[in-house]
Amino acid sequence: MPSGRRGRVPVGSSLLEAARQLGVEIESICGGRLTCGKCRIQVENGQFPKHGILSADAHLSSAAADEQTLLLKIGSPECRLACTAQVQDDLLIFVPEESRAHKQIIRKSATERVIEIDPAVRQVYVVVDEAELGEHRGDWGRLQAALTDQWQLTNLTIDLPVLRRLQSALRQGNWQITVTLWQEQEVIDVQPGYAEGAYGVAVDIGSTTVAGHLCDLRTGAILATESAMNPQVRYGEDLMSRVSYAIQHTDGTEKMHQAILETLNRLIAKIAKEAGVRPQTIYEAVFVGNTTMTHLLLNINPVELGGAPFALANREAMDLKARDLGLRISPSANIHILPAEAGHVGADNVGVLIAEAPYQQDEIILLVDVGTNAEIVLGNREWLYSASSPTGPAFEGAQISYGMRAAPGAIERVRIDPATQIARFRVIGEGRWSDEWLADGAEQPAYRAAGICGSGIIEAVAEMFLAGILLPDGRFNPENQGDRLLWRGRTGAYILAAGDQTGSGDPILVTQEDVRNIQLAKAALYAGAKLLLNRAGISAVDRITLAGAFGSYIDPKYAMILGLIPDCDLAKVVAVGNAAGDGARIALLNRQKRIEAQEVARWIRYIETAVDPEFQNEFVGAIHLPHATDAFPHLTGLLPEKGEKSGGRGRERRRPRLG
Amino acid sequence: MPSGRRGRVPVGSSLLEAARQLGVEIESICGGRLTCGKCRIQVENGQFPKHGILSADAHLSSAAADEQTLLLKIGSPECRLACTAQVQDDLLIFVPEESRAHKQIIRKSATERVIEIDPAVRQVYVVVDEAELGEHRGDWGRLQAALTDQWQLTNLTIDLPVLRRLQSALRQGNWQITVTLWQEQEVIDVQPGYAEGAYGVAVDIGSTTVAGHLCDLRTGAILATESAMNPQVRYGEDLMSRVSYAIQHTDGTEKMHQAILETLNRLIAKIAKEAGVRPQTIYEAVFVGNTTMTHLLLNINPVELGGAPFALANREAMDLKARDLGLRISPSANIHILPAEAGHVGADNVGVLIAEAPYQQDEIILLVDVGTNAEIVLGNREWLYSASSPTGPAFEGAQISYGMRAAPGAIERVRIDPATQIARFRVIGEGRWSDEWLADGAEQPAYRAAGICGSGIIEAVAEMFLAGILLPDGRFNPENQGDRLLWRGRTGAYILAAGDQTGSGDPILVTQEDVRNIQLAKAALYAGAKLLLNRAGISAVDRITLAGAFGSYIDPKYAMILGLIPDCDLAKVVAVGNAAGDGARIALLNRQKRIEAQEVARWIRYIETAVDPEFQNEFVGAIHLPHATDAFPHLTGLLPEKGEKSGGRGRERRRPRLG
Repeated sequence: MPSGRRGRVPVGSSLLEAARQLGVEIESICGGRLTCGKCRIQVENGQFPKHGILSADAHLSSAAADEQTLLLKIGSPECRLACTAQVQDDLLIFVPEESRAHKQIIRKSATERVIEIDPAVRQVYVVVDEAELGEHRGDWGRLQAALTDQWQLTNLTIDLPVLRRLQSALRQGNWQITVTLWQEQEVIDVQPGYAEGAYGVAVDIGSTTVAGHLCDLRTGAILATESAMNPQVRYGEDLMSRVSYAIQHTDGTEKMHQAILETLNRLIAKIAKEAGVRPQTIYEAVFVGNTTMTHLLLNINPVELGGAPFALANREAMDLKARDLGLRISPSANIHILPAEAGHVGADNVGVLIAEAPYQQDEIILLVDVGTNAEIVLGNREWLYSASSPTGPAFEGAQISYGMRAAPGAIERVRIDPATQIARFRVIGEGRWSDEWLADGAEQPAYRAAGICGSGIIEAVAEMFLAGILLPDGRFNPENQGDRLLWRGRTGAYILAAGDQTGSGDPILVTQEDVRNIQLAKAALYAGAKLLLNRAGISAVDRITLAGAFGSYIDPKYAMILGLIPDCDLAKVVAVGNAAGDGARIALLNRQKRIEAQEVARWIRYIETAVDPEFQNEFVGAIHLPHATDAFPHLTGLLPEKGEKSGGRGRERRRPRLG
Repeated sequence: MPSGRRGRVPVGSSLLEAARQLGVEIESICGGRLTCGKCRIQVENGQFPKHGILSADAHLSSAAADEQTLLLKIGSPECRLACTAQVQDDLLIFVPEESRAHKQIIRKSATERVIEIDPAVRQVYVVVDEAELGEHRGDWGRLQAALTDQWQLTNLTIDLPVLRRLQSALRQGNWQITVTLWQEQEVIDVQPGYAEGAYGVAVDIGSTTVAGHLCDLRTGAILATESAMNPQVRYGEDLMSRVSYAIQHTDGTEKMHQAILETLNRLIAKIAKEAGVRPQTIYEAVFVGNTTMTHLLLNINPVELGGAPFALANREAMDLKARDLGLRISPSANIHILPAEAGHVGADNVGVLIAEAPYQQDEIILLVDVGTNAEIVLGNREWLYSASSPTGPAFEGAQISYGMRAAPGAIERVRIDPATQIARFRVIGEGRWSDEWLADGAEQPAYRAAGICGSGIIEAVAEMFLAGILLPDGRFNPENQGDRLLWRGRTGAYILAAGDQTGSGDPILVTQEDVRNIQLAKAALYAGAKLLLNRAGISAVDRITLAGAFGSYIDPKYAMILGLIPDCDLAKVVAVGNAAGDGARIALLNRQKRIEAQEVARWIRYIETAVDPEFQNEFVGAIHLPHATDAFPHLTGLLPEKGEKSGGRGRERRRPRLG
């Protein structure tokens, strides 16, 4: 139990052997030496056709003193160890979750994910023949023999820094050592005696934010999570300015490479310290990022990504030694970088793909990951398209007059009363809406408004449109002369937060230029999705998945009102958080997923938007609010009805042009 | 011609294809693109059964302008290029030596060696598909495809530093590049356009001397040779004192590692400069050395080699990246270290083995390589034993009162007139014997005597014995009161060079202690050889091969008079120079030999001398001059006859105890 496997095994078989024979994998590090205690199982009372009801332990060899001692020590006196308990007669065995090899764990991120634990790094405990006179295999030769005898591992190599420590480890451990292996082909650590603890990091290198998880490679548990700013921001806000920096400065690539490396080293040191893990026991790191990020991580000049035909140095997944990059984890650790799809769709999108696995679904899914570029994936198990859209950083709060990153004080939610045209809002770090903490006698807010973040500007623009402040073409309605509007000639601005609601005392405005930037960004995003829909010959999707921080913060309703995404049942629009980072973690914990990543990266059909006239056409058509080229049946009820009186001051509002 | 292969090929085949079909490998780097000019061949006039006499070129497609241009450029207007010339009818083709792939070259070292050139490093010229929009393989993917199409190379990897240069190389070379491959599995360099030049170094790291060759990996030519002192000497003259230094000082291993690394880097920079070769085009380095040297080279603490059971960290051959060791050649270059046999017989002896290949001989060979330790190999194609003997550094001129290294001024040859007991000698750097330049009116010598080197002390002691100055037990003959002898109590010393013959003006002596040290050294050497003879159950060998600098300088006759080596026909005693270094060069130029090295290192039976009572017994028995335990029939005529009047001054000389 719980696999339900049953079969006959020879009397005297250990439960571990019996389980293997029946195809049930039970975890074991020490290989039956009563050291690790990982293979504990429980004997169940159960009914068998031949014997009727069995009492627990009735048909199992009894536990010797050393087994009992270990079980007490690990706090499981009710269990037995599968490596020593022997089958005497029919038995019903329960293998607890934690004793299962290749266990599946469900990790909660923004969404729940099931990850089968099958890491590339594995630790085994071996007893090695002592060196003796007249026997000349050398310590490495003897260790290889022991690994073959005790773990059926052959054709191994040993990394030089490990070979340097081998002789002292063997003698210190009295010829018993714990060996850390990568891909069952290379010895990447040796420790004297029985040792436990193999860790890995999964890092998503975003253009602006770097986020890393420290995981226990045996259990899959996330031990610590941290994020940091990408220091390359100082060389350019967006990708293209960084590429330009690399082109214009001889040492530009090197500088940006060193900057990200330093940040990664600091980030990893921090999460290791937080989790109480020695960096030397971090044996693998998986990185995802867009193609410019991975080029810079590898110290490869991204110049070719700056112009057509956008040639990658390498599209394939890479494995390299941590020391070759200067990453301060175990020097023998492997760095795995997920493959890319094309010049503008990188390992981060492949991370999203293996996290969401649209290639295993029947439903047609539109996957949208919005960063400075938006990566868009459309399809299901039968076909899969991807594209990249140059949305620019407006959705991240950049290029917005009062824009800021999603930090305390950032306006993230906006509601505008169509009658008064006054906005109420919520800032990050303060649970209450502004009208609540502005009310008489209310407690002061933790933070007053400091600026507008990505989700805030989207809600603000959408609400301004719904409130009749903006016309469908994005202009401020010149007929609207309410006191929340400021006019300079024919150019308007909207007072989102008055001076008494902000930290600085100055009002926070949404300007015409801000609206234009949001229009350009949303048109790019929509045009990309539309291009893929056209290519697939379909007009609607079954489900929309929003990945990335942006997707988590944004209200899908507003995304649809603005026309960021195609029409879809709102209940079928879900945000899954940092799916790229989750993909990195999945690849860290399951090596089969790396193969899957490589396969899907080659299989997916990438559509180049940059020079596609159809994209330009869709882009122009999507500038309007929500946009002018398509029907949005699911918006019914969300948009003002034709002729409806709204937008305050009794003015007639124009209905957006649909169809 | 000259292979004699013949066969039928389709009309229109290129000669290159035809040759391949007939199993004749012709060199080609550019793969038929009229760039490299390596595949030039000559059309012969010859007789065929069907056509009678053929005139040259009669049945070959005529040369186009571009072929003619290239042939003129490379100075071979009489040749054709096999890649473009097409077979029209029966033909007789001569493939010159330099156009043959896997050519055999004969290199003169101390002995002539035939080396088949089949290096691990290979360069190929490829034309790569240009990057274009809508094609997403990436530059590395496109290069892989080109290597598969044009050179049938698959499953390749690319080293990160090379990937960093790939994109600019492709564009600079207009999508034509020269790729350097290691073992046909890894790309270790890319250069724009057609480029030629792959070099390698073979280095023998001796305890006192480091000697390196720079070779052209394509032709096998030695381009430069240099040697340097091993700087580890400052941490200990002999191996055991270096091991002690590593044990007694925490940073001892690191210090000695850095010292040798620095010397290697300087040595390689020097030979590269000498040969006009860029260090970045040195793509492989092969090292040999004794086990302590290879451990220190790899920065592995040699502590275990300091005592029984003398456990090696690793007995097997190793391949590692030059950058992992800090060797300043191409960072992607491979470092190959030959395998060891046992704790005291290292890669240097394996170098000797593949250079001399006793495992391919019918004759039973005794191979002696004398350094601070002597490694002894005995056997033939059927069986092979090896042993190590602790001779100490006496044979290298150390532990000798007036000892010095083999440098200008060192006495290397000695003849003592039995009548006068006066020695004449020859010093390194001066061609004439001392009596010639001491004669009236003779020209001054280039160097006067400064000390005694290894071969000099052996000849001195042997001649002293033959002249009756020494008794067979090694004592100075107390009855000899000649004026060339100095006595302090009962301890004598011999004036080898008087003050007027030396640079300093002080005489050069051979003391009783010097004689004792030579006795101990020669007894160790002989006992080691005797142990192997006993183990093999034989009493004589067919051939004795002396390897190492020592073997080259020593006169085999004196080696046998002193009893360094077992009895053997003097004509069958040959010196082969630095066979260990030759082995390194052979492994550098031929990768099959690396496999052979690994096989023989495992196959040879190593006999541990250190704790063998039989060795101690043979050692004690071999202290005498020449020694007391065996007959030396080949010495007949060399030793003074019983009762012969000699040794001057009319004193009766005792015959050495033989048998």
